[in-house]
Amino acid sequence: MNKQITLAMGNGGEENNELISKVFYKAFANDILEKSEDAAVIHNGELAFSTDSFTVSPIFFPGGDIGKLAICGTCNDLAMMGAKPKYLTCSVIIEEGFSLEELEKVVDSMKKELAINNAVIVSGDTKVVPKGSVDKIFINTTGIGEIEQKGLSANKISEDDVILLSRDIGCHGATIFTAREGMELSSNLQSDCASLSIQVQALIKEGVQITAMRDATRGGVSAVLNEWAKQSNICIEVQEEKIPVSQEVYGLCEMLGFEALNLANEGTFILAIPKADAAKAINVLQRFENSANSVEIAEVTQEYPAKVILKSGHGTKRFLEMPTGELLPRIC
Amino acid sequence: MNKQITLAMGNGGEENNELISKVFYKAFANDILEKSEDAAVIHNGELAFSTDSFTVSPIFFPGGDIGKLAICGTCNDLAMMGAKPKYLTCSVIIEEGFSLEELEKVVDSMKKELAINNAVIVSGDTKVVPKGSVDKIFINTTGIGEIEQKGLSANKISEDDVILLSRDIGCHGATIFTAREGMELSSNLQSDCASLSIQVQALIKEGVQITAMRDATRGGVSAVLNEWAKQSNICIEVQEEKIPVSQEVYGLCEMLGFEALNLANEGTFILAIPKADAAKAINVLQRFENSANSVEIAEVTQEYPAKVILKSGHGTKRFLEMPTGELLPRIC
Repeated sequence: MNKQITLAMGNGGEENNELISKVFYKAFANDILEKSEDAAVIHNGELAFSTDSFTVSPIFFPGGDIGKLAICGTCNDLAMMGAKPKYLTCSVIIEEGFSLEELEKVVDSMKKELAINNAVIVSGDTKVVPKGSVDKIFINTTGIGEIEQKGLSANKISEDDVILLSRDIGCHGATIFTAREGMELSSNLQSDCASLSIQVQALIKEGVQITAMRDATRGGVSAVLNEWAKQSNICIEVQEEKIPVSQEVYGLCEMLGFEALNLANEGTFILAIPKADAAKAINVLQRFENSANSVEIAEVTQEYPAKVILKSGHGTKRFLEMPTGELLPRIC
Repeated sequence: MNKQITLAMGNGGEENNELISKVFYKAFANDILEKSEDAAVIHNGELAFSTDSFTVSPIFFPGGDIGKLAICGTCNDLAMMGAKPKYLTCSVIIEEGFSLEELEKVVDSMKKELAINNAVIVSGDTKVVPKGSVDKIFINTTGIGEIEQKGLSANKISEDDVILLSRDIGCHGATIFTAREGMELSSNLQSDCASLSIQVQALIKEGVQITAMRDATRGGVSAVLNEWAKQSNICIEVQEEKIPVSQEVYGLCEMLGFEALNLANEGTFILAIPKADAAKAINVLQRFENSANSVEIAEVTQEYPAKVILKSGHGTKRFLEMPTGELLPRIC
């Protein structure tokens, strides 16, 4: 490993996982952490517990801001473990000179998104650091959720499952990139940033048996599928043309050579669902605007264990690798 | 309030409380948050939940480093609510180019302090941001503890209680100040940074009834006593000469005009204990090296409700005010 921390080590991909496993997992080793789920399951399996720090730049972007993102991000991690978000902490680090008005806007976004999740902030911390010690504002949220469907795990996906995707991909990554570069795409492109707990609660209420869920944030769909393939030692065979990509994201990828599957999302999730429940799951998801174009994208086999295969309509196959390199820093 | 965030708004004193109440409490209003305890009490009173972000500079200092501080800080907040720290999350934001070796040192300090608390990190997040977006490394820890003595609250201190202090004050603030200024005091001055859960568990095990506890971090002893006086609408009458101050801290305060009572501590706590249990509490505390010079410092009266009075040996009295102004940024 490089002797200095590189941007790639925070990319949500290969180098990020290496840093986490060689430094953090090694030191903090315990059974819960090693499960590598979106949220830790604690207190006799009753509660989910998850943390995220948000450093996104710019802090306001089409479709959201750092406040909305900070609530969605943590609540979604809880939801991905079958939990209903309940209690959150909020810890902010603010740069001296930051505008009070912008802070109030950010906090107002948090408030709105908390209401959607029916969750509350019960503890907080506020630090102000001198100019240059932080860029504007970073927010940490950490949440506790009550688990409504137990046993979800990225470590037990099998050939009995199929893989679903909740919506078209890459909107958050594409939005942050264009906002940061000051590109005018005269398009409707905006971040997918959204809370997913309502969809998840509907799935559970309708009796859908869920094997695993994960929101495709840093590292995008590629990272989630590769992590799942490794964690469950399965081969995920993706039908490439089934993956919904909007015109706007497709255009940006074509223009700049990005891979949509590697772009970050903040309100898009992947589900491993037993074949018998897949149609029901899609039916439930499609009731919601944010997952109206949800779709089955892959099957699980033992063809190449721990690998992800992309199959095109013409019958060609290639491996979809874990993303590597710098990708886009400060995406979330 | 100033239209731009100032360093004073993060001082742990008056302006900090104003920002918190006018922006965060206002938006996030709920019963738990408004109790303003060191940790939120949730899940039918069974669990304590608290968060802290650590931005200390320098990250290595005599007596500790940002890693040790990050575990002590959050575990102490849980302990102050009568809880045994159990599960923590760890979220780091690292500057591109930061040394891997230093990161490993920091993580190793966290590991050691977790062992002291018998707590585990169960969930994490790792962000790397470009040079200049953060100074070296910031760490958030958020913890859940199991409450062993219920009902502790800064809102119900009464004239039946006396106020104890666990040790001599100001070591952390004085250490960070001298380390940052590059002052050579050729002294034994070091931060008091330490985990307090062992002392707290001993108090509970020995049957000491605890009304309230709080560690005197940012804003020091002055901030805690003023917050308590307001929260419980009591007058706290402090015998100034009873407050232990080391030669080193005293010397620095004399030289630079600091008020030791306003200096930050990271392993020093204040207790409100019913008079009947005070002697027993001191007896238990004095068994531990870190609280060997614990002492009763104040009585609770109704003389000036919501105020703190400092009484000198000569019989003079003055109000001890909530700290204001910039104090020392990046102290924790």
